[in-house]
Amino acid sequence: MLKRYLPILSWLPHYNRRLCGADLLAGVIVTVMVIPQSLAYAILAGLPAVVGLYASLLPLLAYALLGTSRTLAVGPVAIIALMTGAALSGVATPGTPAYLEAALVLSLLSGLMLIVMGLLRMGFLANFLSHPVIGGFLSASGLLIAANQAGHLLGLDLEAHTLLPRLGELAADLPGVHGPTLALGIGSLAFLVLLRLYGVRGLRRLGLPTPLAGLLTRAGPIAAVAATTWLTWRFDLAAQGVAVIGEIPRGLPPLTLPGFEPALWRNLLVPAFLISVVGFVESVSMGQMLGARRRERISPNQELVGLGGANLAAALSAGMPVTGGLSRTVINYDAGARTPMAGLFAAVGIALVTLLLTPLLYHLPIATLAATITVASLTLVDLPMIRQTWRYSRSDFSAMAVTIVLTLVEGVEAGILGGVTLSVALFLYRTSRPHSALVGRIPGTEHFRNMVRHDTETVRHVALLRIDESLYFANARYLEDTAYDLVTTHPELEHLVLICSAVNLIDASALESLDAINARLKDSGVTLHLAEVKGPVMDQLKRSDFLDDMTGRVFLSTYAAWRELARETE
Amino acid sequence: MLKRYLPILSWLPHYNRRLCGADLLAGVIVTVMVIPQSLAYAILAGLPAVVGLYASLLPLLAYALLGTSRTLAVGPVAIIALMTGAALSGVATPGTPAYLEAALVLSLLSGLMLIVMGLLRMGFLANFLSHPVIGGFLSASGLLIAANQAGHLLGLDLEAHTLLPRLGELAADLPGVHGPTLALGIGSLAFLVLLRLYGVRGLRRLGLPTPLAGLLTRAGPIAAVAATTWLTWRFDLAAQGVAVIGEIPRGLPPLTLPGFEPALWRNLLVPAFLISVVGFVESVSMGQMLGARRRERISPNQELVGLGGANLAAALSAGMPVTGGLSRTVINYDAGARTPMAGLFAAVGIALVTLLLTPLLYHLPIATLAATITVASLTLVDLPMIRQTWRYSRSDFSAMAVTIVLTLVEGVEAGILGGVTLSVALFLYRTSRPHSALVGRIPGTEHFRNMVRHDTETVRHVALLRIDESLYFANARYLEDTAYDLVTTHPELEHLVLICSAVNLIDASALESLDAINARLKDSGVTLHLAEVKGPVMDQLKRSDFLDDMTGRVFLSTYAAWRELARETE
Repeated sequence: MLKRYLPILSWLPHYNRRLCGADLLAGVIVTVMVIPQSLAYAILAGLPAVVGLYASLLPLLAYALLGTSRTLAVGPVAIIALMTGAALSGVATPGTPAYLEAALVLSLLSGLMLIVMGLLRMGFLANFLSHPVIGGFLSASGLLIAANQAGHLLGLDLEAHTLLPRLGELAADLPGVHGPTLALGIGSLAFLVLLRLYGVRGLRRLGLPTPLAGLLTRAGPIAAVAATTWLTWRFDLAAQGVAVIGEIPRGLPPLTLPGFEPALWRNLLVPAFLISVVGFVESVSMGQMLGARRRERISPNQELVGLGGANLAAALSAGMPVTGGLSRTVINYDAGARTPMAGLFAAVGIALVTLLLTPLLYHLPIATLAATITVASLTLVDLPMIRQTWRYSRSDFSAMAVTIVLTLVEGVEAGILGGVTLSVALFLYRTSRPHSALVGRIPGTEHFRNMVRHDTETVRHVALLRIDESLYFANARYLEDTAYDLVTTHPELEHLVLICSAVNLIDASALESLDAINARLKDSGVTLHLAEVKGPVMDQLKRSDFLDDMTGRVFLSTYAAWRELARETE
Repeated sequence: MLKRYLPILSWLPHYNRRLCGADLLAGVIVTVMVIPQSLAYAILAGLPAVVGLYASLLPLLAYALLGTSRTLAVGPVAIIALMTGAALSGVATPGTPAYLEAALVLSLLSGLMLIVMGLLRMGFLANFLSHPVIGGFLSASGLLIAANQAGHLLGLDLEAHTLLPRLGELAADLPGVHGPTLALGIGSLAFLVLLRLYGVRGLRRLGLPTPLAGLLTRAGPIAAVAATTWLTWRFDLAAQGVAVIGEIPRGLPPLTLPGFEPALWRNLLVPAFLISVVGFVESVSMGQMLGARRRERISPNQELVGLGGANLAAALSAGMPVTGGLSRTVINYDAGARTPMAGLFAAVGIALVTLLLTPLLYHLPIATLAATITVASLTLVDLPMIRQTWRYSRSDFSAMAVTIVLTLVEGVEAGILGGVTLSVALFLYRTSRPHSALVGRIPGTEHFRNMVRHDTETVRHVALLRIDESLYFANARYLEDTAYDLVTTHPELEHLVLICSAVNLIDASALESLDAINARLKDSGVTLHLAEVKGPVMDQLKRSDFLDDMTGRVFLSTYAAWRELARETE
């Protein structure tokens, strides 16, 4: 019981020196690797760079205690940083204390929501973010983030938050591009892109083993940071107008407790909810993927609690909203992490960095960070998935397209809400006009298939109608229409058998329609039968008077109905 | 083509003297019978009584031209009057010209919406008002209307719009009850209730034939109106404080064109939409019921146009929102109406009344009208249906209960919106955790049923999993969990067959889950097969790479899969 709510108890007692060695190495590698992205995502959210470091400290401890994934690494991630920036700029001005405070409130609300959802076992809510919606949202966000960073890369100060105004601003400000910033930014970008495209192959040609080549390739941002920081320091480019990180307060994060301001909290409720759900979906699907590889079980509801704890920790330590990040998790996994202890080691490492090494980051150019973000964000744009979805289903594609367009034009919240609403509406619309088929017997077998698609055997006085949908309020009237049409167009009909093999539910509205169909068919001299009614549906029908009033019988199988009714007048 | 949009063309050419005689009689009877309710429903909506007469004139002409039901009678009805009153009191004060103007805007908006929905063939939207929601809404509205009229019955002036404040006000004002009003009101009420309970039986004992007894019983309100009007006039009760209809302007309704006031229009959009949908559902289900009796076909989308035209006509002739009314339609039908011409005759009759007879209505007590409304509204409270729904399905019942409680406590709009939202949410929740069953062969047959419910034959290395739901985003993850659990708990498993007889849709999210299941089972040495995939689903799967990547096969039937796989290692 305690183990369920404190997953740490399931691995800590078996912890040994071998596991510790592996975790320690992974912790050190993660520490070094995630510093650039932690700084970068804080800047993406419009926050001071150090907030990204703070958010990579206590949240890791909280997740190590409460989370169920052994290798998931939490911290600031691109998509959540983008959503945080969009939410905060609606309630405060970047650079003000109010903006920092709002970031804490957002983390706090998101943490509380995640924990409550976890305790109420509401992880299923995340299922309503369908793959096309989340895929479209990530692709659009990738573009938004890249457009967002273009200003930093070019040395321009952009303000717009959605794509088109931002591109317009970019075009208008283009003459003001700052040469040295552009050189550093584009240089880093080119280096990172080339490394990503050819790095592993190139290093393997130099004789390095594949895992090491992969790790070194992923260390590209570190190299870019080191090189451009050295250049900026050596030639004092900051004095020439290159934006740099500047002074970072040395020391551990201060303890913070966001105050209660009703208006602010109310304004941040919806963004906090969306950040929670999107962060959870991203994190849990990655956790499940990695868990599957190592045959470890992820509990989605406990993951909600773990991520909630991490966000509460962020709110209490001057951080920003966090979730399980793709790149930091992959680094952690590939570096050989075995238990959440690796996360603890990384937290200690980052604590040491904030205590001792922040002066080294003074000359780090913002443009370099922008280049790392841009490269990371463009991998979110998943064109093959968009193409596959188009090929597979126009309905899924339209939900995806609406998500993409709304995200780009109206912003992240409108994108997600619009996409989810449309997917639900399309599903309801589809189930409200169900597919149904008149079936016939495949000669010589006990099987019945669609008359239109197969060569089947039929008799004129029996119609076997297979309903391919649960019967509920949205399609109850449609069923009535189908049945009445059938009777009007088949004057020789004596028996109508509704085959319910695909009917998983008959709600009160549909029951009333069945009653109406039964009564009306009776007037026309047609007997209504049911076949292949499933156990749970049958149990429920028995709680009404319908089975007593029905003119015909309930057959266990279509074949039984056929044998009885088709033979009758032979 | 023209006939489809102008249904009058389908019957007018065949019109003859016999039909005309029947319609004329029905028209006269309807004219007399509907005068009290027309006046009463206008008062229920907070409008002058004459508006109810105006709304029974031109709208009848419009519906006769455009509607598809031969016997439906449109006009003010209780439920729409209640909703109209609730909507108008939000934007204007009863008794002011602004209130009258708002009623016209509401009719106009509702008319436009209905016509647009009809032309876009969006009649299916009405399906989302499930039976439990509409039933609960009608029952709650019946109570609301009765509470609303209690003030008029007792001679009190009440203001609150929801049930509890209104009952509180009633209790507080009780000492101020007006004796003569109370006597007239309770007298009429007792007369009408007794007539409804024992009228037909009593008149038949006196030797009258059943149809005449029914008609006379339904003429009860006329008798009550005549008697109390005479009493009020004879003893000049108006001077003693009994509220009466008073002066009604003589003559045909003025032509009106509601002005465009953006704020007012915006405020009335949601109420107009709800009034349109509720009115449509009420009207079309009654039309279909009567149509079924006479084997006439109702076209729901054309009905939208017909009702839309009626509401536009109401907006242009100083009326109020209208729809097909239960009691006036039943009167029309029982009086022998054969074509919409009966509606035209009734319109002419009511026109004559407004031209000539309004002085006779001067002394008609409001309390008598309140008594007729109360009796009519209490028949809306359908306790047997509430009990049946409770017995049949807790889920449907909860949607109904929420509708009833919200309608009583928060008002009509909150009731409908809350009920619809909850029914959709419950349906989604239910489909997000689908029923699935491991099935086995019923010995000696080709049939497979749930292992838990039936005695079946199974083999240890083959699992036959029947999924009882369409596979879509909300349950894709649930399917993965089910499949993984199965593999973990059955170590001897070699083949997993997903039986898709109940799967009517596999969307892009579910496809991705199937891909993941296939890959993961492959790692565990289990082969994935599908069986009984339906035509449309198979067509769609062929548009993806899934069938190529799948480790196993697609079997036409579960029996085919069984023969192939169970035999394999025998």
